[in-house]
Amino acid sequence: MSFPYLEEVVEATPSKIVLLVADGLGGLPDPATGKSELETAHTPNLNALAAESVLGLTDPVYPGITPGSGPGHLGLFGYDPLRYLIKRGIMEALGIGLDVQPDEIAVRGNFCTLDQNGIVTDRRAGRIPSEESEPLVEILDRITVDGVQVRAHPVKDHRFVLVFSGDGLDEAVTESDPQKPGLSPLEIRPLNPGAEKMARVANEFIADAREALAGRDLANMVLLRGFSRPPEVASMAEQFLLSPAAIATYPMYRGLSKIVGMKMLETGTTILDEMKTLAEHRENHDFFFVHFKPADAAGEDADFAKKVRALEEFDTGIPALREIDPDVIMVAGDHSTPSILGGHSWHPVPFLLHSRYAGADGVAAFDERTCARGSLGRFPAQQALMLAMANALKLKKFGA
Amino acid sequence: MSFPYLEEVVEATPSKIVLLVADGLGGLPDPATGKSELETAHTPNLNALAAESVLGLTDPVYPGITPGSGPGHLGLFGYDPLRYLIKRGIMEALGIGLDVQPDEIAVRGNFCTLDQNGIVTDRRAGRIPSEESEPLVEILDRITVDGVQVRAHPVKDHRFVLVFSGDGLDEAVTESDPQKPGLSPLEIRPLNPGAEKMARVANEFIADAREALAGRDLANMVLLRGFSRPPEVASMAEQFLLSPAAIATYPMYRGLSKIVGMKMLETGTTILDEMKTLAEHRENHDFFFVHFKPADAAGEDADFAKKVRALEEFDTGIPALREIDPDVIMVAGDHSTPSILGGHSWHPVPFLLHSRYAGADGVAAFDERTCARGSLGRFPAQQALMLAMANALKLKKFGA
Repeated sequence: MSFPYLEEVVEATPSKIVLLVADGLGGLPDPATGKSELETAHTPNLNALAAESVLGLTDPVYPGITPGSGPGHLGLFGYDPLRYLIKRGIMEALGIGLDVQPDEIAVRGNFCTLDQNGIVTDRRAGRIPSEESEPLVEILDRITVDGVQVRAHPVKDHRFVLVFSGDGLDEAVTESDPQKPGLSPLEIRPLNPGAEKMARVANEFIADAREALAGRDLANMVLLRGFSRPPEVASMAEQFLLSPAAIATYPMYRGLSKIVGMKMLETGTTILDEMKTLAEHRENHDFFFVHFKPADAAGEDADFAKKVRALEEFDTGIPALREIDPDVIMVAGDHSTPSILGGHSWHPVPFLLHSRYAGADGVAAFDERTCARGSLGRFPAQQALMLAMANALKLKKFGA
Repeated sequence: MSFPYLEEVVEATPSKIVLLVADGLGGLPDPATGKSELETAHTPNLNALAAESVLGLTDPVYPGITPGSGPGHLGLFGYDPLRYLIKRGIMEALGIGLDVQPDEIAVRGNFCTLDQNGIVTDRRAGRIPSEESEPLVEILDRITVDGVQVRAHPVKDHRFVLVFSGDGLDEAVTESDPQKPGLSPLEIRPLNPGAEKMARVANEFIADAREALAGRDLANMVLLRGFSRPPEVASMAEQFLLSPAAIATYPMYRGLSKIVGMKMLETGTTILDEMKTLAEHRENHDFFFVHFKPADAAGEDADFAKKVRALEEFDTGIPALREIDPDVIMVAGDHSTPSILGGHSWHPVPFLLHSRYAGADGVAAFDERTCARGSLGRFPAQQALMLAMANALKLKKFGA
């Protein structure tokens, strides 16, 4: 739940907040050592910062729920991740850096294989490599449908994104993917009368695509799912009176930042590059989101040692951050990615908050078990921004 | 959120609950020593009680939100502070001990200064002292408006309270305070058709006040804001089947207690006076709210040493309380008031619960960091009364 009287208490001030996100931050013990990635990594700078900070654990969405990148980040940006859903089509578009407009519909596509009876035999067309699928995406991109513009963009292997632009399009339609082989692709149907045009256009596009791809052994059809428009989100400027900027290298996180109205800052690929960018722009914004990807990537690869190294690299950014001297520092994760699971997980995520007015737990360690004993306790990630705003003295007293 | 089936589980029993509130209880470390006010104070009695109690931290309203006295206390009384808002006019009236009836409207007033063009040059009329403003309040008190009674009461310096009594008055009107100098006072407008009479009456009063004050250099006009009626709150007797009494010396806290239907007990000014009152009335009630103000006052003055002394004074009340031997003791705060901030703050507040059935954390200390590690964890202040009721065996089993 968001605080319902935010408008009455929020005020703009020059104080600076930095939200430093290590993607997939939390982990689990390696059975061989009994220590998690954070407990194994040599992170002297994080530990020193922790000693002067308050610690806790965030629940990204809901206990037991494993978040995708969308809800994981929206929560840390101060938004209720159960209210603002970023659907699959939009996430896929964000992931390749597309800028989908509020009146456009993005949809995720797969190339698939049909037999001569029109039955799906492989929903991923043998996972054909990008070299083979990209020319096919160009074929799709040339398809025209009356009354709308359709652009096709390659993603990776058998995956692509379509963006439909035109008047009166609606996301409330069914999907064509039958979800398992042995069935025919499904007709797209409107879920409400306002979505009839979208369904008609999508079915026309699919028929044209089938014709254009006919005769191939593998990728001779498309399956579409996740029709979606960008969520209608009040910007961080409107909602929190912040002037926010994002320092992130991956398109998906840049896209998520854009949804809440952050300004994109150009930056390099390392944590030190990102800190340099932060230093250069320190005076132009009062909220900075800095995104660090490698910890999640290593966890997804189930590579414990690589995640440890990624966290050690993350640690090297802390001295530069402290030199920039923001009023409030948060170190957080959008979710946990334990190497032993090889993917995102439901575990609560270590969290650290540093400010002149935060107090300090006085423990020189930053890991899952230390944070579980921290004075912030365990709390919904959405509340982290409220804590940061309070510590930045950007929230007035509520009630007389 | 309140427990939605309270009615089904609550029962009246003779067991006694004491809610002992140290206003502004929580603090922050003095940067010089690294210790908070509670950590610095010599509080042997609180520490001994803590060793036999369970500890935790309360969030008065919402993480990051700094509560005023109204929401801070309503939460501890078991009410959702986001549902029952006590607006500024009522709080100001409570603060000077007025008894505003459910059909009356209280409003906060300032004397201000207008130039010859009717533009506000000083919203506080040079903060004229009470000696000078009190005769002016008497002038306002003599103004009569058709169909309603208007009483004017001095508060302090340039501030006063008006109470409008009469049929058909509604709080849904705009304010006349333009919020900054250089503008004219605003006309009061109704926010819904039912509030037309209130707006008309307020505008007539303002016109009469301007005439009555004309010709003065400083306080030649009034600004009104925070039109409000007392919130409609089910009493603690109705809601919790309690027979509650309040032992408090300051008018505002007596007023807040009255809103939830507590009986006011006459008492002296020290914590020992208050405990004596409690002992005398032990058999007449089953819930006692005891309010101790000096800790907050010292924190508001940014006087660390004075807050430490106030907490030490608070501590001296504990032996008398234990002699009275209530079934359940809560030691709580309505909010934190760290001396280094010099005001109310958003920090969670130390909380202690003692009863035969509470268990014990076994740690002989009562301060922010000890409570952060307490077995009650961090929880909304509104839930404290439920815990106390449970420990007093006043809540039956829920569900079969």
